[in-house]
Amino acid sequence: MRFAPLALLIASLLTTTSVLALSREETPPKPKTMQELLEASKPGDWRTLDPARTLYLELDSGRVIIELASDFAPEHVANIRTLAKEHYWDGLSILRSQDNYVVQWGDPAEEGQPHKPLGGAKSHLPAEFERASDGIAFHALPDKDGWAAQVGFSEGFPAARDPKEKKIWLAHCYGAVGAGRDVAADSSTGAELYVVTGQSPRALDRNITLVGRVVQGMELLSVMPRGTGPLGFYEKAEQRAPIKAVKLASEVPESERTALEVLRTDTPFFDSVVESRRNRRDDWYKRPAGHIDLCNVPIPVRAPVRKPPA
Amino acid sequence: MRFAPLALLIASLLTTTSVLALSREETPPKPKTMQELLEASKPGDWRTLDPARTLYLELDSGRVIIELASDFAPEHVANIRTLAKEHYWDGLSILRSQDNYVVQWGDPAEEGQPHKPLGGAKSHLPAEFERASDGIAFHALPDKDGWAAQVGFSEGFPAARDPKEKKIWLAHCYGAVGAGRDVAADSSTGAELYVVTGQSPRALDRNITLVGRVVQGMELLSVMPRGTGPLGFYEKAEQRAPIKAVKLASEVPESERTALEVLRTDTPFFDSVVESRRNRRDDWYKRPAGHIDLCNVPIPVRAPVRKPPA
Repeated sequence: MRFAPLALLIASLLTTTSVLALSREETPPKPKTMQELLEASKPGDWRTLDPARTLYLELDSGRVIIELASDFAPEHVANIRTLAKEHYWDGLSILRSQDNYVVQWGDPAEEGQPHKPLGGAKSHLPAEFERASDGIAFHALPDKDGWAAQVGFSEGFPAARDPKEKKIWLAHCYGAVGAGRDVAADSSTGAELYVVTGQSPRALDRNITLVGRVVQGMELLSVMPRGTGPLGFYEKAEQRAPIKAVKLASEVPESERTALEVLRTDTPFFDSVVESRRNRRDDWYKRPAGHIDLCNVPIPVRAPVRKPPA
Repeated sequence: MRFAPLALLIASLLTTTSVLALSREETPPKPKTMQELLEASKPGDWRTLDPARTLYLELDSGRVIIELASDFAPEHVANIRTLAKEHYWDGLSILRSQDNYVVQWGDPAEEGQPHKPLGGAKSHLPAEFERASDGIAFHALPDKDGWAAQVGFSEGFPAARDPKEKKIWLAHCYGAVGAGRDVAADSSTGAELYVVTGQSPRALDRNITLVGRVVQGMELLSVMPRGTGPLGFYEKAEQRAPIKAVKLASEVPESERTALEVLRTDTPFFDSVVESRRNRRDDWYKRPAGHIDLCNVPIPVRAPVRKPPA
């Protein structure tokens, strides 16, 4: 199997427990690296993204790719798809960057000013904090969690489940994308979106609607200068990073789409990747942790592997 | 009690579970905010930093303040104090910024090149991954943790403890400062330092020597552009952010020191702050979490409160 250099880079960026090498030139230890593990994967261990549920956030610094979670927040995702098709966010900007918490974008209109019209999108949606756990697959981790009875993955997203209440919900891990709201639970429309850029704020789980997850490009959002206003909002318009466009991948010509595969999270192979992170056996680690937190599990992506010419 | 605006700002930055407001102008909910809680604190709930154990990392963008943990890594802290006094890091630069993981600085010399001499500092130190739990206070959280038998705070630092093994160690939370090492457990000198800038990599606990914690200025480190080389090292020297100086506060004239107080972590008041984060009771939160992870607990800092003139 061949890997495009991009894929290796991305896998490296997603590797949250890499060796803290003294310098990159010194002889590295010989672990079973993420790369070596991934090289042993089979094509069926990977999945492609559905272009109709993939959002491209186009910044001057590059493209952030978001996978939308239709089965967890169907109403919000439908609204977000409408807003993207109608170019709602094009020309708006990143409004907020709060250290160790979130970046956020949407309508910069202040109170009393007219807000940008939502066009064909709905102005009122139900809260979609959780859903019934029946009818949706859940791949549980054996690891304990302080926030929920069970944690694991559902449709590729970090998730948590309560078997007694028969509820399942998306978890606020690094890269989670949610719909900002006011005090009322049902006050989000999807027009204002935030992305987690710090320590996982799991206290937000079941308190706000998560709509998806950044699968590539987090490093473009996480470096946004922190805003100095309350809650990390920028105090001056010129401090905001402009948004060139937010588009559905399905609305972009195929030649301009980012070809990408995401590791499936419901396979025995994925279990082996998680185990290799739960218990590091390379020379560098002296004590395997025997545990992994949900939000420490990497979900690798790669450029698709091209078949050799026949 | 009066708060300097700086203190409020810092408390806000350290608040990891702030409201995801739709915009800063809309009427905010009326929680018992961190600020309101802190206004009810007493002078004895705060402590000052020992200048001899406080490191100033001076960047073009400002000052990062690190508290050193002498009782956890005495040999490393002694070395770091010597290196700072002898201006070891002055004129060096940030070498590495890996997304959702760490930034790192030290000697940029490549393999085969001569390394910068350590001067009066030792070139070999023992690993200081953990220490005996006897003889050091530990303020335990009641919350469960997947990585350790107990978690809590010791001397103001997030820490974990194993009562059976009678060991205690510092935890890799956001802002933790550690000593990079090679494969050998005892290969760190403190000359190469890293800071956690992402989801807490607790798998590193007891695998590497932590030497302290950033108490102010994380937002200067967390926004460093991510390096595109392996492990997030910068590929070109000009991409590295220069270090103007690393100094002990005790070596800086008092007029140039940053006056700062840190909330004590061993008081009933601190317990009340943690509880307010464990179970949010404001209008915005619809479901208190009933739990908090060690690394989600904020440790507020403030500018010292001046006594009113007599």
